[in-house]
Amino acid sequence: MITAGIIGANGYTGIELVRLLQRHPQVKLLHAGSRSLAGSPYAQEIGSLRSRTELDFRDASIEETAADCDVVFLALPHGIASTQVSSTILERSCIIDLGADYRLKSRELYEQWYGVEHGSPQLLEQAVYGLPEIVGRKAISERNLIANPGCYTTASIVSTAPIARAGIGSIPYIIDAKSGVSGAGRQASQGLMFGEVNESIKAYKLKAHRHTPEIEQMLGQLSGNEVSVQFTPHLVPMNRGILTTTYIRPTEEIAGQLTEEKLRGLYEDMYGGETFIRLLPEGVFPETRWVRGSNYVDIGLTYDQRTGIIIVGAAIDNLVKGAAGQAVQNMNIRFGFEEVEGLGDIPLFP
Amino acid sequence: MITAGIIGANGYTGIELVRLLQRHPQVKLLHAGSRSLAGSPYAQEIGSLRSRTELDFRDASIEETAADCDVVFLALPHGIASTQVSSTILERSCIIDLGADYRLKSRELYEQWYGVEHGSPQLLEQAVYGLPEIVGRKAISERNLIANPGCYTTASIVSTAPIARAGIGSIPYIIDAKSGVSGAGRQASQGLMFGEVNESIKAYKLKAHRHTPEIEQMLGQLSGNEVSVQFTPHLVPMNRGILTTTYIRPTEEIAGQLTEEKLRGLYEDMYGGETFIRLLPEGVFPETRWVRGSNYVDIGLTYDQRTGIIIVGAAIDNLVKGAAGQAVQNMNIRFGFEEVEGLGDIPLFP
Amino acid sequence: MITAGIIGANGYTGIELVRLLQRHPQVKLLHAGSRSLAGSPYAQEIGSLRSRTELDFRDASIEETAADCDVVFLALPHGIASTQVSSTILERSCIIDLGADYRLKSRELYEQWYGVEHGSPQLLEQAVYGLPEIVGRKAISERNLIANPGCYTTASIVSTAPIARAGIGSIPYIIDAKSGVSGAGRQASQGLMFGEVNESIKAYKLKAHRHTPEIEQMLGQLSGNEVSVQFTPHLVPMNRGILTTTYIRPTEEIAGQLTEEKLRGLYEDMYGGETFIRLLPEGVFPETRWVRGSNYVDIGLTYDQRTGIIIVGAAIDNLVKGAAGQAVQNMNIRFGFEEVEGLGDIPLFP
Amino acid sequence: MITAGIIGANGYTGIELVRLLQRHPQVKLLHAGSRSLAGSPYAQEIGSLRSRTELDFRDASIEETAADCDVVFLALPHGIASTQVSSTILERSCIIDLGADYRLKSRELYEQWYGVEHGSPQLLEQAVYGLPEIVGRKAISERNLIANPGCYTTASIVSTAPIARAGIGSIPYIIDAKSGVSGAGRQASQGLMFGEVNESIKAYKLKAHRHTPEIEQMLGQLSGNEVSVQFTPHLVPMNRGILTTTYIRPTEEIAGQLTEEKLRGLYEDMYGGETFIRLLPEGVFPETRWVRGSNYVDIGLTYDQRTGIIIVGAAIDNLVKGAAGQAVQNMNIRFGFEEVEGLGDIPLFP
Repeated sequence: MITAGIIGANGYTGIELVRLLQRHPQVKLLHAGSRSLAGSPYAQEIGSLRSRTELDFRDASIEETAADCDVVFLALPHGIASTQVSSTILERSCIIDLGADYRLKSRELYEQWYGVEHGSPQLLEQAVYGLPEIVGRKAISERNLIANPGCYTTASIVSTAPIARAGIGSIPYIIDAKSGVSGAGRQASQGLMFGEVNESIKAYKLKAHRHTPEIEQMLGQLSGNEVSVQFTPHLVPMNRGILTTTYIRPTEEIAGQLTEEKLRGLYEDMYGGETFIRLLPEGVFPETRWVRGSNYVDIGLTYDQRTGIIIVGAAIDNLVKGAAGQAVQNMNIRFGFEEVEGLGDIPLFP
Repeated sequence: MITAGIIGANGYTGIELVRLLQRHPQVKLLHAGSRSLAGSPYAQEIGSLRSRTELDFRDASIEETAADCDVVFLALPHGIASTQVSSTILERSCIIDLGADYRLKSRELYEQWYGVEHGSPQLLEQAVYGLPEIVGRKAISERNLIANPGCYTTASIVSTAPIARAGIGSIPYIIDAKSGVSGAGRQASQGLMFGEVNESIKAYKLKAHRHTPEIEQMLGQLSGNEVSVQFTPHLVPMNRGILTTTYIRPTEEIAGQLTEEKLRGLYEDMYGGETFIRLLPEGVFPETRWVRGSNYVDIGLTYDQRTGIIIVGAAIDNLVKGAAGQAVQNMNIRFGFEEVEGLGDIPLFP
Repeated sequence: MITAGIIGANGYTGIELVRLLQRHPQVKLLHAGSRSLAGSPYAQEIGSLRSRTELDFRDASIEETAADCDVVFLALPHGIASTQVSSTILERSCIIDLGADYRLKSRELYEQWYGVEHGSPQLLEQAVYGLPEIVGRKAISERNLIANPGCYTTASIVSTAPIARAGIGSIPYIIDAKSGVSGAGRQASQGLMFGEVNESIKAYKLKAHRHTPEIEQMLGQLSGNEVSVQFTPHLVPMNRGILTTTYIRPTEEIAGQLTEEKLRGLYEDMYGGETFIRLLPEGVFPETRWVRGSNYVDIGLTYDQRTGIIIVGAAIDNLVKGAAGQAVQNMNIRFGFEEVEGLGDIPLFP
Repeated sequence: MITAGIIGANGYTGIELVRLLQRHPQVKLLHAGSRSLAGSPYAQEIGSLRSRTELDFRDASIEETAADCDVVFLALPHGIASTQVSSTILERSCIIDLGADYRLKSRELYEQWYGVEHGSPQLLEQAVYGLPEIVGRKAISERNLIANPGCYTTASIVSTAPIARAGIGSIPYIIDAKSGVSGAGRQASQGLMFGEVNESIKAYKLKAHRHTPEIEQMLGQLSGNEVSVQFTPHLVPMNRGILTTTYIRPTEEIAGQLTEEKLRGLYEDMYGGETFIRLLPEGVFPETRWVRGSNYVDIGLTYDQRTGIIIVGAAIDNLVKGAAGQAVQNMNIRFGFEEVEGLGDIPLFP
């Protein structure tokens, strides 16, 4: 049994963390952080937790929270964590940062894409990128600073990693991503109001979405060469779910001999033993409805002989495998629990 | 550990039963019935279950299913169960019927509202109405034929029972109910297509919805007098959830002295110890988002001194407390498991 | 050809006014007011108008706007109009106020329900309540201060007026209303975000919604006696549309002799010649999808002999007949245009 | 004034045609065809038309309909039109076919992609592809057999034609398309039910969607060379709207010198005078909400210097510019009416 705290427990990611941690048999959730709601009973603000928690929202720093928590989850806008996390904190607690501050290994890249100074570049080396199926469990189990991947990133990387690792794709990979609205957070803004989002779809942040360098960093590591991606996110009128559709031209060397079967083999090799990755059978493509509320990544793929393009699709629940679920998975690995502990939910359909 | 089967495992209620039973620690699900999909792997048709079940759909009668199942759940259109269930079946298995055939105690009432002959009226007496918070656990624990209440019915009865029991309401109770689309089933029909339902709301089956006599039967039993209800269902563009808003004029005897506090007292008395009923604090009214995926009934109430009307609101997930969850709750009671076993999910928000 | 201006042209009502006025053959729209967007091209902010208007948003007072506009539409939060409208303005321009400031005849009632002082109570008598089918065209054609009814109000009053006028209903009328989200405005707020509204339904402002006294005022006038209503609004996950379901007990005098036919007769008598009111045939109830984007009120009704309750349903598009369309209708009447001019749109389905 | 008939007036396209034609000042709609609803009043089945048409559904062949109609719109599944349309019919009436039968110039290609024999290959040469902005008005004005483009096709072709014409794109063009549900028709099917579509997104018919050869045919004609496309449609939980996001690598010759400005120039040259095409300013991308209910194509584009990829987005209302609106536009051209007649609706937002 470990103790846990959440900074930013009032956003969608924070609420999802509470949902998962309250039922986790190895965790006692001590702290639900929120500046604006400090003092209010959690269940009064977040009605889904009514009768399930006695916690009050509390305004406490990361340091204060870490004082009595073995693990602290940070669900904060970028730029805050890096100014508050310190070596001292990391000596006593494990920090799982669901924000962007420790995901990029390059401080320069971070400052370029996020437009703020990094508050603790000296900690970047200690941070491990918390995508277990890609970086492996060992690295995660040994670190106290875990940078939980972004939601788009998880789907994008997991669904193309076997291709990057095998070095068979031409760059740029073209990733056309579609997300439900909860990925954009819970802060009031006109653009996210029901009347603006419902009955519409749009692309946004073309060429400029901040998950781009994160995807490129990880695929590049797997490949051994630079991998660039054309990443285009879209906003879809639904609460949860990310679908990525990725288009990759095989390299010239491989193009003539590539078959769907060989392609599928790469995925089976890499993900054969993974609990949370479901490789769909031939001819089946992922749909976000089949993963809702679960930690699964569903992957479907094909190779179009006619055009010479590989198409890979992936579906995740952006709040689970794309955020809170993955954070719990990382916690399980770090503290030696069963990796699926607290993550056994079957997707909720419809 | 008991064995279980589901007849009609391809509808929304059946799928929800599979979701709940697959994770239930005391149940081994042996049989997922469907005529049209017989032979297909369950997880191939219902993608949420991929990697979670090896079952194939199977076309088997209730009798065949009961042969190796301790409990058989029936998720069938009305009129089928009553022609297939028999004393012989009930001697060896517990039948939990999620359809309408055994809910009404009066064969005449059944035949009048459903327009078909009842196939086994001799079994009506054996059936217990499976609404534990109303009929009590003892009755349910002793029977092998449990008539699981309808979805509208559950919300309507639970939210007004304390008033009926106290005899303080004039008839008819006016129940304005709003339901998500999954309540109407998964059979293809034009009226339930996305393009017809989305961006619209309508009332339907005014004066004539078949849950009416069921509500009246149970409220009448509680009251000791006849209780009539004006029940009007509405179709709302959402997947899950029922909200009822009920308007009751106090009887003349009570009208002058009624206060919201007294009213609330009736609910606290009746439901104080109930795990699945959450009585909301003063000024708070239920919203279906706070119960999604859970077995809760959220109840809010007020008394408008200005107009002399009591207003009671209730929210449930129609597929959980309104169908599959309640069926599992009944099974738990019947087989002596913890009542909350397998029903511990925290609502999924958003 | 008249000139027109809109104060508050950036909200949903304002945008709908622009849509209707830009195509109105008798109107030249000169002014689209917004403080926050002043200076921006209208079509840059509101993409639906791209290539359809050259207007820029402009920050101008009602007085400044009225200086060159024959008609000024006010789409403002309550409490602002009443401090700015003056006799001087009304001498040169017609003001159609889509807000609440001039709807209630009683200053006291206004101040009690809205909690602010009324800024120009001396003008209340000049104001006409702009519901043509109820107050008649003559009154509207003669006034320069037209109080456009609220959206809930329009549906509630139009659908029950024949009953109130005939004096056959017991009080309170129970009005259970359901609205799409655009009725709540376009101002950013957490409660109206997609993730909060989608996949949920809730009642709100029980006993306290500000459209209550407006409904009671108008029904009382029609009846000659006090009419109280129990008005409960609900928020439905859709952009546009209001549905009201109203329950009325006939008075004791009429109860024994009431038939659905007689009831229908009252509606035919009152609305037989009305272009924008569609009385649905027996057994058909309104659905908001059939009125979307149009100025229609669809009305369906029945009388339940079993329970003794009259049920009346009404559907409108809250932004058209519930706001901008009705305002244009009032303008047409006031300026002597054909009443349907600019309002001929057939509902957009799906 | 011409007379018109619709075969298939009960589907979404047919209903949209009725909406547009009923208000068209130059058209008298005589015939609303439907086999299943023959004899029923149109407005009884399609509530949006209540009080707007006295037509009854009628079961009549194309020939019978053409007997008294100057123009007949066919909104039928593929394979039917080609067996019924004949030279005799085309001598007296103009046929605007909203189905697929006359879109492909190659009978072989048609039979390969649609899997049925073409019933009147001798008419293929007479048919003109009814995409006015691409094929020009003259060709359309002279033919009596107009093959109205598919919905995906319209968005795909219009948004990439300037690139194809200039010959600056490498193949395949990668077209990632997203559509609302009305594009899939109104026939009852489980996959299109609300509970299946809502809260989900999926790709479908990868490598195999039948709009593919149509896009390739037209882009190839414009280019003078073969153009292949990787076309992947997605189903989005909304009623109306198509968004395409297209990714094109410039050819090697152009790659070094290409700028966004030059690219934009190609579009301005081709579409500068087009009423229904709105080229969005730099940095702005299309959203389906801004075209709902209108005949517009909104186009946004950019060139990513970093990756060397051109991205073009287009939004249309699939039922208007993607079907019924374009058919009316073709009719206007064919009969010498103003091209915008009956198509002046401003998009309905929200």
